[in-house]
Amino acid sequence: MWGIIATWRMALEGVEKAGEQLAAGGGAADAVECAVREVEDCPYYKSVGYGGLPNEEMEVELDAAFMDGDTLGFGAVGALKDFANPVSIARALAAGDANNFLVGIGAEKFADKMGFERKNMLTERARTMYARRVAEDGGRPLRAARRLVEPEAAEERGRGAGAESPRNGIRQAADGPRGHDTVGMVCLDSSGAMATATSTSGLFMKLPGRVGDSPIPGAGFYVDSEFGGAVSTGLGEDVMKGCVGYEIVRLMGTGLHPQQACEQAVAAFGEKLTRRRGHAGDISFVAMDARGRWGVATNIEGFSFVVQTEGGPACVYLAHLQPDGGCIHEVASQEWQDEYMRSRMAPPV
Amino acid sequence: MWGIIATWRMALEGVEKAGEQLAAGGGAADAVECAVREVEDCPYYKSVGYGGLPNEEMEVELDAAFMDGDTLGFGAVGALKDFANPVSIARALAAGDANNFLVGIGAEKFADKMGFERKNMLTERARTMYARRVAEDGGRPLRAARRLVEPEAAEERGRGAGAESPRNGIRQAADGPRGHDTVGMVCLDSSGAMATATSTSGLFMKLPGRVGDSPIPGAGFYVDSEFGGAVSTGLGEDVMKGCVGYEIVRLMGTGLHPQQACEQAVAAFGEKLTRRRGHAGDISFVAMDARGRWGVATNIEGFSFVVQTEGGPACVYLAHLQPDGGCIHEVASQEWQDEYMRSRMAPPV
Repeated sequence: MWGIIATWRMALEGVEKAGEQLAAGGGAADAVECAVREVEDCPYYKSVGYGGLPNEEMEVELDAAFMDGDTLGFGAVGALKDFANPVSIARALAAGDANNFLVGIGAEKFADKMGFERKNMLTERARTMYARRVAEDGGRPLRAARRLVEPEAAEERGRGAGAESPRNGIRQAADGPRGHDTVGMVCLDSSGAMATATSTSGLFMKLPGRVGDSPIPGAGFYVDSEFGGAVSTGLGEDVMKGCVGYEIVRLMGTGLHPQQACEQAVAAFGEKLTRRRGHAGDISFVAMDARGRWGVATNIEGFSFVVQTEGGPACVYLAHLQPDGGCIHEVASQEWQDEYMRSRMAPPV
Repeated sequence: MWGIIATWRMALEGVEKAGEQLAAGGGAADAVECAVREVEDCPYYKSVGYGGLPNEEMEVELDAAFMDGDTLGFGAVGALKDFANPVSIARALAAGDANNFLVGIGAEKFADKMGFERKNMLTERARTMYARRVAEDGGRPLRAARRLVEPEAAEERGRGAGAESPRNGIRQAADGPRGHDTVGMVCLDSSGAMATATSTSGLFMKLPGRVGDSPIPGAGFYVDSEFGGAVSTGLGEDVMKGCVGYEIVRLMGTGLHPQQACEQAVAAFGEKLTRRRGHAGDISFVAMDARGRWGVATNIEGFSFVVQTEGGPACVYLAHLQPDGGCIHEVASQEWQDEYMRSRMAPPV
């Protein structure tokens, strides 16, 4: 059995490429890196790689990670600028026993020395969205970022082009526009090896140097080939408070199905955050276990994800949050998928 | 009941100050920040704050974090240069709901705006030790750092002034010279609130931009006032692979005594690392639970730590590793303590 699961519809083209490799006997590490690079290279996804939305100083700063479930070795970069494929730099950093997590200029020096491709990651499209946000905030970009360090950050959610309004008190997924949508993938190959990778431009209008959960082992990603792997998307600062990625893998290790493990960990931690802080940010997880079984849980409505397992095509699903905290997964209709790409590629308004 | 526990003898003076505050009814957050600042300010501790050993480019880059066990809110800085008290910057970052973890130049911009004290953290003493290491490596500083990204990193352990040679196959603690000794503290105040803080200059001769486990929630620190807190020192890259801080707190939450929780988590993860990677780096943890009970576990011999609880003085202990992975704690003799300060303050040779 082989398989791959990934956050958000934007992962589809990458998952399809990875699926071809896995079907031909390719390894999990190569497949997951290839799949994430595909998302990084696409200019239409506003929260990952090229075309990602910038920080408050209009710089695109990128976080990414890679983890090998056999060795538990990981590599990660944070607040990295001007490189085309952060996930590949992260994978290169996973080779050693130390210096696995590099940030800022240090990460860029390493990438230069290793010969990775330099690229200005700010697109005209992202520049337009930045300018619009600055105009909305009366020419003071700091105000937008300030909201994120104040307890009213909840007000930020659901804003921006394409976001639907909250319905039934549950926040709606918008796949990109809120600007904290990480692509994360868990992959199992036919030899039983597992790997995960993540990549994101992080929160739109974040402070310079801000690092989220995507490069943090145990928070935004975790994988152990004996049990399984999990990756997240959402408000990184909240995911980091609960080590939710590690907890899901731990629960799979106790025998839980990935769906149970995801639901239990996400619901329990969301409740704890609400009890302790009065609110919880968006948290969504996808997971796959060592047998290729998969699961998804979220605290927002309509979170999209992509799965491919041996013998079937890559498939886009939408997760529907149930009143008991569980999730029902529905195959995304062709209409939904057409509308998705149309809205991604429409001129920014 | 109030209490505080901290990694390494170097924490003693800070713990004593915190103890006075806690005895007078002070809060855990203020006490733990004050105690870590004391260590950061001391020029004789080679792995924390002022006097910390530099990276391969002879720059002192600092990691620090603060976490509030009531709200699970945390703040952290990574690869921060030229500020006197990283722990206080980390605490300031804990106030908001986002942008809690800042690295590199972004973290420095935030600290400037908040008015924190700028300071050149490289001492003459640290410069001398850097020059000596470069000379040992034939004028090529990179070679020293390279060792850390190669599987032979184990060879690095036990090197440097003051390190004893391995005895009985167990690595010996040397409190500073290996250059990856973090000060970490867990604090419980008389109102039942808990907080943790960490601070370190990280691995001596690390690559620029390298971030270890000290600013990573769930790895180098974790605290939940309902259960307890844990902080680490050792090879951050290995601690991060296992979310050991989170795991210890989780085990305390299941009812384990902090000593059992530390021993179980450190031994199990050390065994897993050895099974998967052939070796495990130094890992030591101190923990305190919500009742003020404490525990310590390590995979090196002679790890020192400091504890003070209500009604008693601050006390320095040495942890002795047992063949079954357990630890026996011995009060450090006056001779050991005198020799400790003598060797810290001796001119670098």
